[in-house]
Amino acid sequence: MNTLNIILKKKNKTELTYNEIEYMVSGYVNGDIEEYQMSAFLMAICINGMTFDETYSLTDAMLRTGDIIHYDGIDGIIVDKHSTGGVGDKVTIALAPILASLGIKIAKMSGRGLGHTGGTIDKLESIKGFNTQISEERFIENLKNIGVAISAQTKNLVPADKKIYSLRDVTGTVDSIPLIASSIMSKKLASNADIISLDVKVGSGAFMKNISDAKKLAKWMVKIGEKYNKKVVVTLTDMSTPLGYAIGNSLEVVEAVKMLNGELNNDFSELIYYFSSHIVSMALNVDLNKAHEMVKEVIDNKQALNKLIELVEAQDGDSSYIKDVSKFKQSKYVIEVKSNLSGYVDSLDAYKLGILACNLGAGREKLSDQIDHSVGIELVKKRGDYVNIGDVLLRIHTNFDDNEKYVKKIFKYYKFSTIKKEHKLILDTIK
Amino acid sequence: MNTLNIILKKKNKTELTYNEIEYMVSGYVNGDIEEYQMSAFLMAICINGMTFDETYSLTDAMLRTGDIIHYDGIDGIIVDKHSTGGVGDKVTIALAPILASLGIKIAKMSGRGLGHTGGTIDKLESIKGFNTQISEERFIENLKNIGVAISAQTKNLVPADKKIYSLRDVTGTVDSIPLIASSIMSKKLASNADIISLDVKVGSGAFMKNISDAKKLAKWMVKIGEKYNKKVVVTLTDMSTPLGYAIGNSLEVVEAVKMLNGELNNDFSELIYYFSSHIVSMALNVDLNKAHEMVKEVIDNKQALNKLIELVEAQDGDSSYIKDVSKFKQSKYVIEVKSNLSGYVDSLDAYKLGILACNLGAGREKLSDQIDHSVGIELVKKRGDYVNIGDVLLRIHTNFDDNEKYVKKIFKYYKFSTIKKEHKLILDTIK
Repeated sequence: MNTLNIILKKKNKTELTYNEIEYMVSGYVNGDIEEYQMSAFLMAICINGMTFDETYSLTDAMLRTGDIIHYDGIDGIIVDKHSTGGVGDKVTIALAPILASLGIKIAKMSGRGLGHTGGTIDKLESIKGFNTQISEERFIENLKNIGVAISAQTKNLVPADKKIYSLRDVTGTVDSIPLIASSIMSKKLASNADIISLDVKVGSGAFMKNISDAKKLAKWMVKIGEKYNKKVVVTLTDMSTPLGYAIGNSLEVVEAVKMLNGELNNDFSELIYYFSSHIVSMALNVDLNKAHEMVKEVIDNKQALNKLIELVEAQDGDSSYIKDVSKFKQSKYVIEVKSNLSGYVDSLDAYKLGILACNLGAGREKLSDQIDHSVGIELVKKRGDYVNIGDVLLRIHTNFDDNEKYVKKIFKYYKFSTIKKEHKLILDTIK
Repeated sequence: MNTLNIILKKKNKTELTYNEIEYMVSGYVNGDIEEYQMSAFLMAICINGMTFDETYSLTDAMLRTGDIIHYDGIDGIIVDKHSTGGVGDKVTIALAPILASLGIKIAKMSGRGLGHTGGTIDKLESIKGFNTQISEERFIENLKNIGVAISAQTKNLVPADKKIYSLRDVTGTVDSIPLIASSIMSKKLASNADIISLDVKVGSGAFMKNISDAKKLAKWMVKIGEKYNKKVVVTLTDMSTPLGYAIGNSLEVVEAVKMLNGELNNDFSELIYYFSSHIVSMALNVDLNKAHEMVKEVIDNKQALNKLIELVEAQDGDSSYIKDVSKFKQSKYVIEVKSNLSGYVDSLDAYKLGILACNLGAGREKLSDQIDHSVGIELVKKRGDYVNIGDVLLRIHTNFDDNEKYVKKIFKYYKFSTIKKEHKLILDTIK
């Protein structure tokens, strides 16, 4: 086997064998294959594509470069979920307690935020004391006892993905269905849950620009899951606008708590009902209507909220923050940005709002940056809402003294229309 | 300007501007752009191609990274030639004296051999004392005085090509028309002759696998030349079989001397007449028949041979080697390989014979290897020749004591047929 010949095969659109793909992946991880060779190979994959079999081989080869989690001694169905990254995406914080309160185990290894997207781990750390670095033993123990555990990744899961992803990031080789599918699925297969719920964002700001590519990605991930006896459900959601009304760490936890308190009726609550019903239906083998009722019940009777409190306590957090969200540290300033135009909000740029929240301190530009949990953006008017001149569009939660430059930018992020247009949040579900 | 965006543009098949291409080339040369980014960019070029304008921009940007030779104070037309690399290609050694003896200046910066192809510099160094490292001043002086100079490259010509080529070599990005055209033309434009004769080899062992790609390459190189007011003539020649009968350094010099002595009538002499007639026709503005006559005359009256003697003496060489080729150091053994089959020679693998000569010591596997000038292969039977069982196919000139393994290989390189097939050496000429 020879690196150059394998690169040339992919360049010449010849299908690669499992052994050839495995040779590239393991060679790159152990340093035998140079970065400049891997990047040429990745570019050839991006442009020439891969067959499903090649994509499956790539996933499997990546999976085998690291550890696989085992849930020995845990009964029942274990669920994992993943989102390809959105702005204001606090789904895990509301979804996990709902599922756990219905007896479905949810084991979630989460990441930190980078760039315009936040990370669940960062959001949870805005709760005083919340420990996202629990050991594998405690993770498994909590899963047994209360049915839910959320932590930062501790074991060496899929080192190939870390190394390949950081190279893709700087070589223009991110947007490729085989590369995205293998990256997501190798990590989820290493996490080794029974049901994998994937939220694939579609739109100009997402990896997947159009619905047909997103559907292909979804179908392949479901098919890869089948090879390992995993149930995979992929929901394609519109990510041209932020999810819910809160962007920023503690602001998002508060919105998730409101959801579990039954206080929300917006796109975020719609998505939570949708995801949780689908998972409950698969895990407990009930129809979708029944599943929806069950979800509503654990929200209405506060079982889901109490499960979040249990989760916080089981991971050393101060649950009084959940019981009384006014305890979250407030930012120094809350600045209301008022509209100088009227009309229906036609679009609201999720990516740019994400970057703005990041600049305020809610996110990181590089992994070593510190996060300010108290800052962010609280939307008041979203897509489809009618706005009069002088109405508050959003509130900036900030600890900076000079925020004029941020306020000025906001006006560019809102586009208005004289008519109200219909937008679909959930585009499709593949399972 | 941003490296990633430029890579993405090429990946997405959008035409790049001059400034974008220049940014990539100069950035790579000065170290601002990483190897792994350049290799991804090169792979995108290989697969998605480049327009002519992009290829011209790439050539120009590469050219500008280094020095350009100036022939101040030299009258008359200056000619340069280049071959994309063949086995047994000693064209320069015969062609240069022919042209110079007709008053056409020939300034040739040459390379050393690597892998299966030899280098003119190495071949000339088999002549005792021949100095291939003459200074630029002497190079120009000799060009003025005797009309010919051949040296190793001294000035810093096209550093971008050196750096990009070594990356292409290890990333599977060699066979691309825009990359080959810009590599060849940037070097030839830096050498700055008035007429540039290019020999593009076509065939399974060459960069150009098929004639239509080779024609496109040829047309683009001619068109790039026009942008700089250079006359470019490209000859497409078949390289499935070695050129002439000698492979190996001193053996090839001897064959070139025989050519200038009028003793040859083979594919090598055919090519020398062809190239020299075309160049003479362009340089002296005469028709091809007249040019052919003029070439024949300087061979018949030994002016060309005497010019080679002048060249050798002007570069510190011992010209008695040219006057009496038996003075060249002989190898320890000359082993005759006799055929165990009969029939017409149908094919004779040039690439494998080149590798064999390299293994005997005539070439280098890496640039630091030492060359043995006395060894090589002397073909007796070539494509189209009839062979009886027991006829000598070729002679191995070797200084090794055990040559059994080489002899065994030879039989595999010859393919026989019961009928004689016609093969064209010269496939096309574009100018």
